[in-house]
Amino acid sequence: MTDAMYTSSIPVFRQMLGGLAAILAKAEAHATEKNIEPAALIQARLFPDMFPLARQVQIACDFARGVSARLAGAEVPKFDDDEQTFAQLRDLIARTIAFIDGLAPARFEGGAQREIVIRPGTPKERRFTGQAYLLSYGLPQFFFHVTTAYALLRHNGVEIGKRDYMGQY
Amino acid sequence: MTDAMYTSSIPVFRQMLGGLAAILAKAEAHATEKNIEPAALIQARLFPDMFPLARQVQIACDFARGVSARLAGAEVPKFDDDEQTFAQLRDLIARTIAFIDGLAPARFEGGAQREIVIRPGTPKERRFTGQAYLLSYGLPQFFFHVTTAYALLRHNGVEIGKRDYMGQY
Repeated sequence: MTDAMYTSSIPVFRQMLGGLAAILAKAEAHATEKNIEPAALIQARLFPDMFPLARQVQIACDFARGVSARLAGAEVPKFDDDEQTFAQLRDLIARTIAFIDGLAPARFEGGAQREIVIRPGTPKERRFTGQAYLLSYGLPQFFFHVTTAYALLRHNGVEIGKRDYMGQY
Repeated sequence: MTDAMYTSSIPVFRQMLGGLAAILAKAEAHATEKNIEPAALIQARLFPDMFPLARQVQIACDFARGVSARLAGAEVPKFDDDEQTFAQLRDLIARTIAFIDGLAPARFEGGAQREIVIRPGTPKERRFTGQAYLLSYGLPQFFFHVTTAYALLRHNGVEIGKRDYMGQY
């Protein structure tokens, strides 16, 4: 039986990242159709001190990779986070999905009890069991940024619906 | 050992609903301080055909109760969803937390394999195992509405941060 830490992370990230890629494709098509400069959406924010769309997507991908890697006991990969176009953001999502798909389910065995330390050596250092890390930290963070990307595009008039957000399930 | 279906649902809902209640308290204080009519926030939307804040909170609570009840094999309670003030929304959250806290962990045993049917008898009927229902449907829906409530208030200038959203963990 596949470990619950695998089942509760990789398929969830894959589903939601697929939805996010589809949302970005609709946003790009919307920009083309309405003759909107793509950067007007990619750099859009819901409030001046919130992150713009590109950064929301990068952080969502970062949580998907970081949470998955830590639960699997694998090294967290470093990505550049320098995407500035829809094509680059979609490629980032594809590379993120490829990374998490490359983590064998067997690596997640024992992940629920594995100690996970975030921001080690800093004043914000925090220790979790793998299970608490996933459920009380990783998933809430991941969903936050995926949903904010959606809300931001929806607020800017892109015709997307919750069905797009939900991805394939 | 507590069933994974319990661990992956009730504590997550409780944490995020606690965060949502704290966010609403800050929004109410903001309205009072800035002399803003509370309804201007409670009825605010990110786009004209999106749900307003009150409805986002109601739907988040509805998913928390419905998903928890179905996983526990309990009846899904009917709530009126007629809240129109911050006090009423906070009370709704409190009653929702009281409901899910009343579901004994033992009831979730076998919940992962339990067949769950949503919108039965309609063209949108859908069947899931309990596990798929929670991970691929219930949690994404719940987080969507909690985050949208946050984004909506943030967009309206309420001074909240991701720390508020995350709740106590």
